[in-house]
Amino acid sequence: MSGSGLIAALTTVSKREQAEALAHHLVEQGLAACVQLQAIESVYRWQGAVQQEPEWRLLIKSTQARWAELQAAVLAQHPYALPALVAWPLPEGNAPFQDWVRAETGS
Amino acid sequence: MSGSGLIAALTTVSKREQAEALAHHLVEQGLAACVQLQAIESVYRWQGAVQQEPEWRLLIKSTQARWAELQAAVLAQHPYALPALVAWPLPEGNAPFQDWVRAETGS
Amino acid sequence: MSGSGLIAALTTVSKREQAEALAHHLVEQGLAACVQLQAIESVYRWQGAVQQEPEWRLLIKSTQARWAELQAAVLAQHPYALPALVAWPLPEGNAPFQDWVRAETGS
Repeated sequence: MSGSGLIAALTTVSKREQAEALAHHLVEQGLAACVQLQAIESVYRWQGAVQQEPEWRLLIKSTQARWAELQAAVLAQHPYALPALVAWPLPEGNAPFQDWVRAETGS
Repeated sequence: MSGSGLIAALTTVSKREQAEALAHHLVEQGLAACVQLQAIESVYRWQGAVQQEPEWRLLIKSTQARWAELQAAVLAQHPYALPALVAWPLPEGNAPFQDWVRAETGS
Repeated sequence: MSGSGLIAALTTVSKREQAEALAHHLVEQGLAACVQLQAIESVYRWQGAVQQEPEWRLLIKSTQARWAELQAAVLAQHPYALPALVAWPLPEGNAPFQDWVRAETGS
């Protein structure tokens, strides 16, 4: 998606342990170079009513070259029937970090 | 802005109740499929001095097709004289989630 | 990178004081219009093992015109041997905020 080849992706899960397990899995598999976790509250409509629920958000840094495998791994391990996974390009960054992300993900 | 048509937008307000009210309003109006809330601290210059203030950030997921109406709704309800609203395209994501965002927003 | 010229950038540091110092420095120098701070947990591989560490994340809003100087300032002040700094364009936003970001950064 961009000249650097780096991407950011976001997904959310219900519990801290799920967030940690998914983040460790993606890094161990070399599908993400790093994942940042944080508690949020989500507002959305489900079955006709607006809901508000605490969740954990994962901000995943990887590469366009690994996007298909990253997506498959997130969806395979995700606890939700309808996971929310989105990604966008990161065209700028310091070159040593970009090199590290590519090396960590084998891109 | 992108092939998927999905976008992410960010804005901030002072208080949790304002963040919740704005998030619920956008979802109820079908201008956002989901909104994530979190407490942050903001650093900026105002009237010549650097300020640091707690705020609440909204991460809004919607579509390019609804951007104009989403922007108008955020600005109409926003408590600040100078709201900070930005958005960028989300070209990648799992297809069922993209479909859900489009359906929730009537895009 | 975009029509508006605005960008968002992300970096992380270990401690709240480092995050505050870097944020204030960037705003004082006119290299960022605003910086948002938040506590996160980071998962990554380092020297062969997956690590999980608390960090502080900075979300920086600036312009493409100041990106080179912003990057240099972040790297000059950053406490890590290998800082993680990435940025992407923000093509959409409310015009008064975009004008304010350009004015604050002299872009």
